[in-house]
Formats: sequence, C-alpha cells, structure tokens
Amino acid sequence: MKLIEGGVCAAKGFRAAGLHCGIRKNHTKKDLALIVSDAPAAAAAVYTRNLVKGAPLTVTKSHLADGQARAVICNSGNANTCNADGIEIAEKMCALAASRLGIAPEDVLVASTGVIGQPLDLSPIEAKMDALAAALSSSGSADAAEAIMTTDTVRKEIAVEFSAGGKSCRLGGIAKGSGMIHPDMATMLVFLCSDAAISPAMLQKALSTDVQKSFNMLSVDGDTSTNDMVCLLANGLAGNPEITEEGEDFSAFMEALNTVTVWLCRTMAGDGEGATRMLECRVSGAPSEADAKTVAKSVICSSLVKAAMFGADANWGRVLCAIGYAGVPLDVSRVDLSFRSAAGEIAVCKDGAGIPFSEEQAKKILLETEIEILISLNAGGASATAWGCDLTYDYVKINGDYRT
Amino acid sequence: MKLIEGGVCAAKGFRAAGLHCGIRKNHTKKDLALIVSDAPAAAAAVYTRNLVKGAPLTVTKSHLADGQARAVICNSGNANTCNADGIEIAEKMCALAASRLGIAPEDVLVASTGVIGQPLDLSPIEAKMDALAAALSSSGSADAAEAIMTTDTVRKEIAVEFSAGGKSCRLGGIAKGSGMIHPDMATMLVFLCSDAAISPAMLQKALSTDVQKSFNMLSVDGDTSTNDMVCLLANGLAGNPEITEEGEDFSAFMEALNTVTVWLCRTMAGDGEGATRMLECRVSGAPSEADAKTVAKSVICSSLVKAAMFGADANWGRVLCAIGYAGVPLDVSRVDLSFRSAAGEIAVCKDGAGIPFSEEQAKKILLETEIEILISLNAGGASATAWGCDLTYDYVKINGDYRT
Repeated sequence: MKLIEGGVCAAKGFRAAGLHCGIRKNHTKKDLALIVSDAPAAAAAVYTRNLVKGAPLTVTKSHLADGQARAVICNSGNANTCNADGIEIAEKMCALAASRLGIAPEDVLVASTGVIGQPLDLSPIEAKMDALAAALSSSGSADAAEAIMTTDTVRKEIAVEFSAGGKSCRLGGIAKGSGMIHPDMATMLVFLCSDAAISPAMLQKALSTDVQKSFNMLSVDGDTSTNDMVCLLANGLAGNPEITEEGEDFSAFMEALNTVTVWLCRTMAGDGEGATRMLECRVSGAPSEADAKTVAKSVICSSLVKAAMFGADANWGRVLCAIGYAGVPLDVSRVDLSFRSAAGEIAVCKDGAGIPFSEEQAKKILLETEIEILISLNAGGASATAWGCDLTYDYVKINGDYRT
Repeated sequence: MKLIEGGVCAAKGFRAAGLHCGIRKNHTKKDLALIVSDAPAAAAAVYTRNLVKGAPLTVTKSHLADGQARAVICNSGNANTCNADGIEIAEKMCALAASRLGIAPEDVLVASTGVIGQPLDLSPIEAKMDALAAALSSSGSADAAEAIMTTDTVRKEIAVEFSAGGKSCRLGGIAKGSGMIHPDMATMLVFLCSDAAISPAMLQKALSTDVQKSFNMLSVDGDTSTNDMVCLLANGLAGNPEITEEGEDFSAFMEALNTVTVWLCRTMAGDGEGATRMLECRVSGAPSEADAKTVAKSVICSSLVKAAMFGADANWGRVLCAIGYAGVPLDVSRVDLSFRSAAGEIAVCKDGAGIPFSEEQAKKILLETEIEILISLNAGGASATAWGCDLTYDYVKINGDYRT
C-alpha cells in the first residue's frame, strides 16, 4: 500500500467539482460540491448518533437502502437541520443533481453543513447545477474538499493504492473537520471513494468496523453534531474479483480504509477549532479494548487536559484524574504515563504516582504541534488510540463571538 | 425557614477559624481551616466518584465509619493526592488537630485541595496548629471559608434557620468551588454544620439524597476532581427530639439542607473558573427524573452551549444538539425551548424547530449574569435542574497558562 495523489478522485471512474453557488455571502468561499461515479457503485454510510438529525441524513439513509449510489451532493453554509421543509429540500437537491447527471434521484446522496434552523434556499443550488456538473473532473478533489470546508483552515484529502485479488485498487477521500460556521455547529463530513469491487454488505461492514477505531475515537469538543456523516462508495472499476466475504482481499481493503480514515482523523484533530496542537492518546495494557477506548476518550475530552496542552504544561495529574473518572474499573496504582513528540519522550508518572522529571525537557516536548499521551494501565493486553486537540482562546472566540 | 448570618458557625456549638500557615507562597492568602463542634456530632459525607482519590478522602471515610465526628481540618495549596505518603500525612493532620483539641483523632475529618502529586509538608500545619485552635470562634466562618478558597473569587457561606420537633434549628455551610490552583485541578469542598439532633443513619440518608439534586447536578468543566467531598455534621444542640426516621422533622431538615446546598451550587457555578455567567438549565416534561437530569446535565456540559452563553448568543441549535446527544430516547419534534433572565423570557424553539424571535431582546436577556435555559420535552411529568457556567477566555487562561 502506498500514498498517492488525487484525493476523492484517485480511484478510477470518480470525478468531482466544487464551486461558489451563493449559499454563503462570502463570494470567495466555495459552498457546493459534487462527487460522481461513472459506474454504479456499492455505497455505505454511518451517521451521527444525535437524535437531532439533519434532514440530509434522513434522505441519504433512505437513498442508501439498496446499498447503491452514483453521486454525492454537499453544500456548506446551511445545515438544513431543524427546518420544517428540510426533507423536501434535501430530496430536491438530489433530484436537481440526478436530473443533470441523468441518473435516478435515489442514487444521489446528500449532505449539508452550516447554520441550523434557517431555511435552505434551493435557488442558488439550482442556478449553479449546470456549472457544477460541467466542472466535474478527475482532478476536482481539491475543489470539492474546499467546498465542504467551514472553519477548517486546511483542506483535507488523501488517497492510497493497494492490492486486492491481484489488481491494483485505490481508495481516497475528502473530509471537513469540526468547524463552526456563522453561526453554528461542528459537523464532521467524510466522503470516501474506491474503485475496488466489493459487495454493499461487505462495504457497510468495512465502514462500520473501521469507524469504531477511527472517527468514533475523535473529539474536538465533545459535542456530537446533528449532521455528521461518513459515506463510502466503491464502483468496482479496478476489476478485482468482488469482495463478498472476509479474507485476504477484505483485509487489504480494511487496511487501506483505516490508513485513509486515521489520516483524516489526525488531520481533523489538528485542525480542530482554534487548535494549536493535535493530541493522540494511546492507552495500552487494558483488560479490554472497550476499556482502553473509554479511557483514551476520557483523557482526550478533558477540558483540563486540553487546556494544559495549550499551555504546553506537563500537568500529568489532570491526565490521571481523567483516567480516574473514565468509568472503567482499574487499579490506579499501576498506571504509568508519559508524553511524547518529535522532540522526545518523557515519563512523568509511574505506578500512579509522580516521578521526578525535567520540566525543561517536558516543555520542549509539549511545544511541538503533535503530542502523544502514552498511558499504560498494566492490567491486560488491549489497547486503543483516540485523537483530539488542545483547548485555546481561539476555540472560545470562534464559538462565543460569532453569531451576533 | 429563613436565611440567617453565621455561615458554618450559625448552628449552636460550632466554631471555626482560618489562617495562613505557609503551604501557599502567597502570604496574604489563608490556607488552613478548622471547624469544631463543642459537642459530639453525627456526621455524614459523600465523596468524588473518581477512582483517583485524594488521601484525605480515604482517611475521612475511615474516621466516619462510626457516623460521628467533632472537627474538620482542611488545607488549600496542596491536594495531598498521588503522594506515596499521603495517607500518613492526612492521618497526622488529624492527630495534630485532635491533640490540640483534646479529642480522638478518629473524630477529625480531613480535606485538602490544591496541587496534585507534590508531597504535603506537615511542618507549616504543625507550627500553626496552636494559633489555629486559639482563633476558633463562633464568628470564624468567613476566615474558614477564605482558607479553603483556591481560584474562587468570592467567599461562599450561607445558613438557614428552620423548625424541627418544636425547636428552632440551624444549618449552615461553607464551600469552595471549582477553582484551579498553581498548578492543579478543580476540587469542590463543602462543609455543612447543623445543631439539629439527627441520627447518623438519617443524616447520611439526608445528604446522599440531597446531593442527587444539588452538587451532582453542578458542572463547571466536566472534570470530576480527585478530592471532591461534602461533609455534614449535626450536634443536636438545638434540643429537638432526635430525628431517627422519615417524617415531618426529617422533611424540614431536608428542606433546610436543600436550600443551603442549592444556594452553594448556584454560587459555585457562577464563580466557576473564568465564568461571567451562571447557567441554570431546567428540564420539564420528561418521562422520568433520571431522563430530565441526563438532558439537563448534557446541556450544561456542552462546550458549544457554554461558549455561546459567553457570547450572549441565543444559539438554540446548540442546546437542541446537546439534548439530542444526551443519550435519552425522546421525540425531538416535541421539544420547546426558551431563555430567561432578570431581563425577561424569550421562546426560541417550538416543536423542535426554530420560531421567529427578536435577536435584540434575546441579547438583552442573555447579557444578564444569571441565565435560565428552559426546556420542555412535552413527554411526561418529571423535571430536573442543573447548574453550570459559560466557557470563557479566562477559563483557558487559568487552566492553560499557570503551571510553568
């Protein structure tokens, strides 16, 4: 497996486009994206667990009932959530794209991100649908990635090449991270496209399994958005024998998928609202993977840990505290803890108690932009990793100052 | 029942003192408090659920095994947590106080708040024990309240007078809120004293019941400290017939207790780290009290809601979002939502969707320092209230900048 260029269009037969249609007032910011597969594709998705669900999710879920899709349309600037006509508008977005592409509306998936509770005006989308379709290109990944950004500061796209059934296959994706948009809420959207041949059931299995170790282990501020969605399309144009069961090919697909999703997780964490540091918490020596995950997430979600990381402060007591309230039965007196980054690694706590360490060296390590918090529970063989970011003045600024 | 002066010494037979002994470098900040009952007292306590527990909690729990206590000693500036000799030091603090007061060490409760993982030097406490005991007075509540403060900006003391068994009884208390101390973590400590006669079993029942609706519904940053503790002493000097079972007198005691604890909750919330606003979330119309509590806590803990309140931004979508991910099954399309303060009340969401409202009026309401978030689930008759505060630049500053 190797990293390649091309993002969401890296796989054979996928084209994408992104442009400014006018949902946003800012004319320089693209706000409408389209991704199309030239061939029918198996499709799978996972959705936010929030009971308040954006209308686009409901429509996408319904369109995915047959495990097939051809296109994804996505706007930023308006979440189309908590609107009385939300479902109708989302259906119309699909119909507009379908009509222009000459495919069935049920083969179009739809996503929206932005302000909640404000009606989404369809006319800018309608007016620019021809231009959007005309702009579709196999080099359109970057435009699409930009069009779905909100307060993201970096475009997020990646792709890999791997082997399955003797064929070279590709899987790539774009994402928008937890960003705030005038005035509203964090939404994570991820669109993944592969040219591998894989049955809808195995595709959904791959995605549902993968998110447990990738996107579900990512937290920027603990708020689960109403519009989170990860979609994965696979059109089979690589020509590999269709993956219909577990085995070597499925494992290769899973490995490629996980490489892409973990890279996107890390990038979204590092680009979290106001973030100056990406935090990766690795928990090992846990009695079970579930316990390891719970502990890793508790640490990555702690406001006090996040604020300490912003201050490059080796305040290990806060990490221990977050381990202690994670809700997992454990023997605190066996916990070891260290911090690691490109500048080195430093042990700060052994057997649940502080050990002498150089504050100077700790500071140097924590001033890097990617920080690992390494926790060993010394109570078993299971492990887990979670990603997050520091809590900064800018997070408060972005989320407190913008709406009025 | 009426509010009275005197704080933790308002009840008959209680004296308190607070002074600077030298645990803190800042000579103007008191760091050692002592509370004493002139008569043997029934005693009860509740403790943090964090698995990482401060040594003082372990010692207090052991001393409370017989349901009796005479004194509480508490220092700020060092949490005596995650230290190899923590238990030993906490026991010695009790022994020092007991020796000076002429009581058994097992009748002394102990609490500490401050930096974690740094050994607590007993010598300043030892050196000032005589002076501390000599300073004990029935007007010493304010000194004791000051001595337990960390980054609290206001002293927290309150007392009430109520009737039980035909006698006038009193119950008062002091508290420190979620404050950060160089360099460490939030700790909530509450000491309550009453002159009512009540059995240890009923006293513990009263406290354990009350905290479910008071301190357990309070969140500043979602981090459960290692040293949280609420202690309640009752020495019976009011002369009422001892409360040994549920009934009118127990209800009167519970009402007094709840008045005191809710006042302390609201005060701690409003004085949360960096807070500019106290948030009270009232959930009604829930299928069960447990559901109402879960929803209220979810809203009060949401970083996005807290940041919006800092910005006085009527961003109701974030409240709805936090309701949606609370983990309680509910019909979002029945949820009503409004904001209220001294400046008025404004409805912003009905049946799960936004309704037109005056942004100007909403701003005026949200610029007050005490904000109520009123949620009706329209799905039953149960309700609950939770308290919190806004998320501000100063929260990040206090918790990110201080240790190094």
